[in-house]
Amino acid sequence: MIHSVGEDLTKGLSYKAVKVSVGIVGCGVVGTGTVKLLLTNREILRKKTGIDFQLTKVADLNWERKREFEVPEELRTTDYREVIESCDIVVELVGGKEFAKKLMLEALESGRHVVTANKHLLALDGEEIFLKAQEKGLRVGFEASVGGGIPVIKALREGLVGNRIETIYGILNGTTNYILTRMFEENLDFESALREASEKGYAEADPSLDIDGWDAAHKINILASLAFGRYFPFEEVHVEGIRNIQKLDVELGKELGYTLKLLAIAKRFDGEAEVRVHPTFIHSEEALAKVSGVYNAVMIEGDFVGKTMFYGQGAGSLPTASAVVSDIVDAGIAIVSGNGGEVTPVDWESEPVKVRRNFFSRYYLRFDVPDKPGVLAAISRVLADFNISIAAVLQKEMVCQLAGKRGEPVVPLVILTHKAYEQDVQSALKEIRELPVVVGEPVLIRVEEEAE
Amino acid sequence: MIHSVGEDLTKGLSYKAVKVSVGIVGCGVVGTGTVKLLLTNREILRKKTGIDFQLTKVADLNWERKREFEVPEELRTTDYREVIESCDIVVELVGGKEFAKKLMLEALESGRHVVTANKHLLALDGEEIFLKAQEKGLRVGFEASVGGGIPVIKALREGLVGNRIETIYGILNGTTNYILTRMFEENLDFESALREASEKGYAEADPSLDIDGWDAAHKINILASLAFGRYFPFEEVHVEGIRNIQKLDVELGKELGYTLKLLAIAKRFDGEAEVRVHPTFIHSEEALAKVSGVYNAVMIEGDFVGKTMFYGQGAGSLPTASAVVSDIVDAGIAIVSGNGGEVTPVDWESEPVKVRRNFFSRYYLRFDVPDKPGVLAAISRVLADFNISIAAVLQKEMVCQLAGKRGEPVVPLVILTHKAYEQDVQSALKEIRELPVVVGEPVLIRVEEEAE
Ligand SMILES: NC(=O)c1ccc[n+]([C@@H]2O[C@H](COP(=O)([O-])OP(=O)(O)OC[C@H]3O[C@@H](n4cnc5c(N)ncnc54)[C@H](OP(=O)(O)O)[C@@H]3O)[C@@H](O)[C@H]2O)c1
Ligand SMILES: NC(=O)c1ccc[n+]([C@@H]2O[C@H](COP(=O)([O-])OP(=O)(O)OC[C@H]3O[C@@H](n4cnc5c(N)ncnc54)[C@H](OP(=O)(O)O)[C@@H]3O)[C@@H](O)[C@H]2O)c1
Repeated sequence: MIHSVGEDLTKGLSYKAVKVSVGIVGCGVVGTGTVKLLLTNREILRKKTGIDFQLTKVADLNWERKREFEVPEELRTTDYREVIESCDIVVELVGGKEFAKKLMLEALESGRHVVTANKHLLALDGEEIFLKAQEKGLRVGFEASVGGGIPVIKALREGLVGNRIETIYGILNGTTNYILTRMFEENLDFESALREASEKGYAEADPSLDIDGWDAAHKINILASLAFGRYFPFEEVHVEGIRNIQKLDVELGKELGYTLKLLAIAKRFDGEAEVRVHPTFIHSEEALAKVSGVYNAVMIEGDFVGKTMFYGQGAGSLPTASAVVSDIVDAGIAIVSGNGGEVTPVDWESEPVKVRRNFFSRYYLRFDVPDKPGVLAAISRVLADFNISIAAVLQKEMVCQLAGKRGEPVVPLVILTHKAYEQDVQSALKEIRELPVVVGEPVLIRVEEEAE
Repeated sequence: MIHSVGEDLTKGLSYKAVKVSVGIVGCGVVGTGTVKLLLTNREILRKKTGIDFQLTKVADLNWERKREFEVPEELRTTDYREVIESCDIVVELVGGKEFAKKLMLEALESGRHVVTANKHLLALDGEEIFLKAQEKGLRVGFEASVGGGIPVIKALREGLVGNRIETIYGILNGTTNYILTRMFEENLDFESALREASEKGYAEADPSLDIDGWDAAHKINILASLAFGRYFPFEEVHVEGIRNIQKLDVELGKELGYTLKLLAIAKRFDGEAEVRVHPTFIHSEEALAKVSGVYNAVMIEGDFVGKTMFYGQGAGSLPTASAVVSDIVDAGIAIVSGNGGEVTPVDWESEPVKVRRNFFSRYYLRFDVPDKPGVLAAISRVLADFNISIAAVLQKEMVCQLAGKRGEPVVPLVILTHKAYEQDVQSALKEIRELPVVVGEPVLIRVEEEAE
């Protein structure tokens, strides 16, 4: 069943007639979309690429389940080994870690190119898989692992190859973006917005990978590794989710001209880099602020190209299949052209990047305080002691009355700072927390200005 | 000086040591940026691609002129033939048609890959150049010809390769977008906004290629050809510029919730396709409406991926150099990997697309009419006769008093139609023009709803 690998096949054959075989393991949301694309657009693909991508086998454990697109009987199997044996390119769409890893390593070991959408596995164990691929002279395509249908991996590795990448800002998780959009637009609280997301099928039964920022963290880790040229250690990614976001802060931020997003950020300066995911206020006029609902967007800044932005559906069966297929095609081209090199490998930089933990950012700080004289003075004195300068203050006249520690009425006092070091801000907060006038836990939300 | 072409060079050498030589003809805005990138980021490029891109020669007629980046003496020449002889990849950044074409054909003839930013030449004479490249088994890279630094050609050919492309909407000309943005935001008239653009260096001494829509037309013609798989005949592109746009229409559109953009559109339905450039109203809430100033954006819709958008600086020395270099890298990879195939050639579809001339669109129509009974009835009767149904009417109470034919006061009457056929609308306008109540020339601006 193996049609090619290497150049032999093309000898004597016209390029237009080359066949490359593809097998898929995991026929769930993305797998089914990929089967549909390969079968529906087979002719378009053949015309465009000169390669006939032939789907040979699709493995899944359960063939009883009704799918959006019916997989032809003769392609079905429950044995992933049958898939590997049938094809030149193995597409892993099972998800999870152990089995997916085993599958990918086995496929590579036996000389198959691999395509995957598994950001979780790549962020954690990518290095082992890429090393195996390198050793074997094979490709691991992972366009679908970040940004669904948006060809952002290709943009980063190829389209912007001439640039030193300075900054990446991404809205990389549709579930949290949907929730925050609803909180912003409809003044919903987190729980109601999450319920709505679940009802609409935008949130998993266990939404914690999304809600707590892990999914976005996996994705920005992959982008950061490509941008910085070295596997960025996942444990060094700073991750905060949106579970504790209060609707009051979304509202107050809106009033100040900001929109709250779960931003995934990778930045570098002076040989140091930081990678972080956290709720972030950005100016409501910026392009990323307008990315709403389940859409994703990635802003990439390079030293020559300046700011670019890539936008589209960040998940879903068909958009993700579009990305999977672009990797299948690249692998197919590599096969028929005698395994031409990749533009940018994942690991291209000689020195590992130094991790920067002490972020330099603007901050939105909210304190619940009694509405009486001296409070602002006490708080701003502490901030000044830590060299944190104040850009704006918003004290609402009882917008909403919060019950204080001792039952007295309190009002929210919001302070927007200029750029300050995270460590200074955390130390200042620690002192402010001890002030008798401050009731409850202060709220800290970072503010990014540079995202176009 | 020729380091490679074919696989010989890589034999016995480690991949990491491969050299590929690059020469540039035309050291103006983009040429200088490209020299700067190749010299500044040479090490980054070498690390990312495993190829050392060595700049061998740069040709220009005038080396006295001061440039943003100084080209090393030993690279300079005034003879383009010296460039061709010195390198594996010839970069054409001269612009214009005759000489650029001669240069590219000579370079291809002598076995060099070519990279160009010359949309004008490609839109008009692309076929001849691509055929020569095909005959020689060489590449012609043209990422920089559309959208400056935005890697949109790569997205269309490779990232979205699995899709049948249904629609492309682009803001592809920075000069006109700057002018329309200023008219929209500051209520300037066209002449003042154009003057401002010239003062800021955003408009050429002779701005007609931009203002009259030709530059955008060249670019959408290139995108349409890739999307439809056949050279779209340039003379079939419908082109209207923004020279006659009145500030009154920008204002009235704004009031109705629309923003005026010079949109470049390629669409297909039922085996027919239309390609057009004209001033277009789009909903002010849509992403493309927010693309302001000299930025460019392209919205591409595919059958699997849905809507995607690509955004960035559409021109300028350094962003455009970023795109040029991505093509240089792809050509370099092709060289060291023994000339691996391109993903999507320009000409991949067996049947030429049928050109559709009778657009189906919504329309904004403005008539200057006396403020008296029966006028709307007369006009809407004609529209009804041509099966054009009205979606909204705006008649302003003397917002601005226009001098009528016979000196009487007139007011602007705006009619927004539902979707209608262009031919019907044109025929209706012809009749309405003859109505005694209508003063002066009616204004027609198309309205697009689908642009996300
Ligand atoms: N969904 C998206 O929009 C999206 C977007 C981007 C990336 N991704 C990534 O794409 C991957 C797949 O996601 P998905 O949403 O398609 O997941 P899914 O719907 O849960 O599909 C996974 C499929 O794999 C099957 N499977 C599990 N173990 C198997 C085995 N040993 N052999 C054969 N098949 C097996 C499952 O079968 P059963 O039905 O028997 O459980 C299921 O049908 C994940 O890595 C995910 O992170 C998803
Ligand atoms: N500017 C942009 O932002 C931009 C963006 C995208 C694409 N492009 C495209 O890029 C191309 C170059 O544009 P540009 O703005 O860089 O133009 P430019 O500044 O006018 O540069 C053209 C250069 O070519 C030189 N030249 C003319 N004839 C020559 C010859 N026979 N041999 C050697 N050199 C010759 C000119 O020399 P002299 O100085 O002696 O005239 C000039 O320096 C055009 O096709 C344009 O459409 C430009």
